[in-house]
Formats: sequence, structure tokens, C-alpha cells
Amino acid sequence: MNEFELIARVTAGLPRNHTVIIGAGDDCAVLDAGLPDCWLLLKTDAVVEGVHFDTTARPEQVGHKALARPLSDIAAMAGEPTSALVTLALPRQFDPAYVEAVYAGLNALARRHNVAVVGGETTTNPDRLLLAVTVLGRVGRNRAVLRAGARPGDALFVTGELGGSRLGHHLDFEPRLAEARWLRATFEVHAMIDLSDGLAGDLRHLLTAGGVGAELRAESIPLSRAARQLARSGHAGGSALTAALTDGEDYELLFAVPANQAVALRDAWPTQFPGVRLTCIGKITAEPGLRLRDRRGLHSLSLHGYTHFAES
Amino acid sequence: MNEFELIARVTAGLPRNHTVIIGAGDDCAVLDAGLPDCWLLLKTDAVVEGVHFDTTARPEQVGHKALARPLSDIAAMAGEPTSALVTLALPRQFDPAYVEAVYAGLNALARRHNVAVVGGETTTNPDRLLLAVTVLGRVGRNRAVLRAGARPGDALFVTGELGGSRLGHHLDFEPRLAEARWLRATFEVHAMIDLSDGLAGDLRHLLTAGGVGAELRAESIPLSRAARQLARSGHAGGSALTAALTDGEDYELLFAVPANQAVALRDAWPTQFPGVRLTCIGKITAEPGLRLRDRRGLHSLSLHGYTHFAES
Repeated sequence: MNEFELIARVTAGLPRNHTVIIGAGDDCAVLDAGLPDCWLLLKTDAVVEGVHFDTTARPEQVGHKALARPLSDIAAMAGEPTSALVTLALPRQFDPAYVEAVYAGLNALARRHNVAVVGGETTTNPDRLLLAVTVLGRVGRNRAVLRAGARPGDALFVTGELGGSRLGHHLDFEPRLAEARWLRATFEVHAMIDLSDGLAGDLRHLLTAGGVGAELRAESIPLSRAARQLARSGHAGGSALTAALTDGEDYELLFAVPANQAVALRDAWPTQFPGVRLTCIGKITAEPGLRLRDRRGLHSLSLHGYTHFAES
Repeated sequence: MNEFELIARVTAGLPRNHTVIIGAGDDCAVLDAGLPDCWLLLKTDAVVEGVHFDTTARPEQVGHKALARPLSDIAAMAGEPTSALVTLALPRQFDPAYVEAVYAGLNALARRHNVAVVGGETTTNPDRLLLAVTVLGRVGRNRAVLRAGARPGDALFVTGELGGSRLGHHLDFEPRLAEARWLRATFEVHAMIDLSDGLAGDLRHLLTAGGVGAELRAESIPLSRAARQLARSGHAGGSALTAALTDGEDYELLFAVPANQAVALRDAWPTQFPGVRLTCIGKITAEPGLRLRDRRGLHSLSLHGYTHFAES
């Protein structure tokens, strides 16, 4: 049993109650706490030393990343984060200055997004630092953007540039909170997810949730400088395109909007977010599965890149 | 710098916003999300293999404890838990059946208290299992019972029996949620805390928060069978009373009510909670500090038991 099979098995039997709109399985839990205009969003995420960061990461970056990850999930729902709790599990020998610097990074990000840090817990994890952050947020009633909802014909957009995040972007990315809320307020966003497992993998989550398929245009996928750099140096295990499709931790937004809003979106975006690239990378199809169109034709894509020709 | 000094330093600089009623430093965070009748409660807590449980603990007990701890904090606010998120950090080699059993224990407790488990995260902690649980709850507006608020003359009560939790109670305790809500609804509870660090230590938190002191009666402190057993076997590092004062993880409620309600409370309790002992263990004093009265007189108490005679 792998991690995904275990999660599927465990989440099938979780207790529910009348407050649950969306439980496990989307970017955040969505809860009806009785607020007349709002639903609550709840998300937790952890970073572990040696897994999500190594000793070359500055402590401020570790704190930043630990909060930025759940904030990115709040963004993927088009929500607004309000408060955060921090569980800090420290090795038996720890440097207080390191911990203060972790919090400095986390607090700076929290302040930029008006997120209150309302406590948490300090405990012992003997062998390595682990930092779990829970974020509470909110979104208008019936206004959460889910993974499900993409419709055949929708245009697929992605923010930013993809691939090679491990060269540094995974430590300093800014969650796309303002971008997501503006998108939701201005356009009809049918489905959205944040890219943590790689474009191909996360797009698959969106397609599965919506019961649809997608066709990507290889030449449109925005390759990051890091993805190109890795490809050139031979460390990417493939091309820059493969890196952009399969590398994790981009923390960009991937979303579907009706095709007839695509041009208006592309026109309005640059004045709203001049520093952030927005790219239409393909379209949603009724036919299930994920396909990539390049100069040689249309290929089926697996989680790990190309698999076989679907047509030519 | 020890853990407490570090926490004090870190919590002093945490970002706040308009939703925060109580931030770090009480049993839970208390948040005003705009609900007309309610405040939200938010709490996170973690259990770590080799720190909070060992290999003799059954996985169902590990899951139970991981959720029961934050539920005990919700109880200490007289709140009602509504949903929980689980962060499960697993060693690289894990047994799926073990993980399912952890969830079985956690889910069973959640169901008893109508708590929805709305997701969480599975990640890697290479060397040992770590389970962090966040609980969202609610309490009536202005009805949260804080650590602060005890007044001179108040009677101090404690539920259950204290000491020796490490013999087993720490793995199977039931959070005092119903008891706390009944207390809050029926009496004027000035201050409350759940006992996780030991009676002497947690009472000190309550006294510091309230700017008051307390006098305990040694003969009234309810000693658990486990505390007596440890004392007899010489493993308690002292008497059963010392165990009851200083052992952690009792997860009982300690609270202060006006002296003129003490008799009515003692009379009403047994019919409400016939299986749970309730004991008046002393009183709140205007004079700061924590004192213990026994046959030999009145003694000052440190976190670790007796220190010196205050009077005789």
C-alpha cells in the first residue's frame, strides 16, 4: 500500500457532522460554522527537516515556507486567511536564535497577509525540526473554488513559471492569495488547485475531481529559469518541459475558466499583477485523461511525463 | 534559554488582527469570526513516538491520545469541539495496518463527541511517528472560561484523581467536555485549566494569569491508585502526594468558583457525573504564591514539590 492508497482508505471512514461542506480531499476543509455570509476554511501542513528543507535553508525561509504552504491552499479556494497555529517540534538540542529566526520569517509573511498567529505548541521531535502550521480562513458562502467543477471547453491557466523549484523557489514563494481572490471576484473560475505535486500530478487531481480530461500545449507551458538551468546541467532527469510538468513545489495556481472569458482575463491580468506571468496552457476536454500536444502530435501523459502516443 | 523562556520570547512578537480575542498563552486561541452568538476556539497539539508514547502503546491509544489532548484544551475553555485536522508524519517504513488502527482510535473518540475529522496531511518524519491534531470548536460569546479570572476566596476544585498517569491513564483518558460545559452552564466558573503539566505547575499558570495565590489542603488532594502504587513501589521519586502534585498528563479540570457556590456544586455533581470524582482542594488567596497546608503547617510549593516552610 503506498501513501495515496493509505490516504484513500483512511479518509473514506472519517467522522463527519453537519458543519462539514467539504472534508478531506480538497485543498482545504470547508466548514459551515453558521456565519450568514461565510464558510470557514481549515488547512494544516508540515515541513520536516531533511524532507522539505535541508541545512542550507536559512531559518527565516523555513518559517516562511511552513506558513506559505497552507496559505497557498487557502488561495486555491479563493479564500482569505485569518489566523494560524504553529506546532514546533524541536530536536533535544536546539538553538534559540534559530527558532526565533524561524518565527521571524513566518511572522513577516503572516503580517503581509494580515494573518494572526494565535498560538500553537512547542514539543520535542528528537532527531529533527518539524514545523506544522494550521491556517483558519474564510470564503464567501458558496464562493469557494473547488478542485471539482472544470467543464469541457474551459481554458486552463497557470500563474507564474514552472519547474526547478528545488533550486530555491520552494523556500521563498509568495502564496497567490490576492491573485486568487481577484480571479474569483472578476471571472467565473470553475475549478482551481495549487501546484504542490507538479503540474501533471495536480492537474490530474483537478480532472479526476471534475470527471473530465485535458489537453495541454507543450509550447505554452511556462518554463522557469530554474527548469531550463536544470535541463542544461543534466540534473533535471529530462528536459525543462519534463521539469515543468513533474517537479513539485511550484505553488502556483492552476485553474479553469470558460473559454469565452479567456481573452478578457489575459487582457485584464497584467495591469492587476504586472509582476506575475499568466499563461493559458490548454483546455479541458470531455474525454478523460491528460494529453500533451507538441510538434510531433498528441501524447498521453502519465504522472511522470510522457507514456505513449495517443494519436500522431 | 529553556523552553518556557523561548516560548515567552516568541509569543511576545506574534502578529495579531481584529479577529483575535485571546491569542497564544491560554488553553485555546479564542477568535471572533463574526458569529453573532459564538466565538471560535482553535487548538493544536502533537504526540511524538518516544516522547508522548512508546512502543508498548497500542496504535488505537496513540490516535485516541492525539485527539484527546486538544479536546481537553477545548474543555478547559468550556467549549464545544466541532472539527479536527490530523497531520500524520510517518517513518519511511510504516505499517498501513498500524496507521489504520491509529485512525480507528482517533475516529472513535471523535464520534463520541460529534467531532468531524475534515482532513489533514500525511508526510514523512523519517525516524518516528508524529501525530499533530488541530481542533476547531466554539463557545458562547463572552462565555469562554479563561485561565485568568480566579478571585481571592474562590474555592478550587479538581475533577478525577491525580498522579501516576504514566501507568496508563495518559493513553485512555476521556476529555472532560460534558463536565466543563455543565459547570459553565450551571455555576459561575471564574477560571479553568486542564491539567497537563501537573497540578502544581498548571495551578501556577492559573494563579499567574489571575494575579492571585492559592492554598491547597494536602489531605484533600485526590490521589489516584496509580500514584499510590508508584509511591509504594518506590518509583514515584517521592510520596503519592508528590506524584499527584507534580506528575503530568492527568487531563483533569482544575477550576475556581465562588466559595458560596461550592456546597451547591458538590451536591449537584454526583447525580450529573456519578463516575467522576470532584474534590475541593483549597482556595484562592490574595497573597501570591502557592502554599500547601498539611499536618505540620503551611509550606511554599515549587513546581517540583516542597521548597521551604512559609510558616509553621
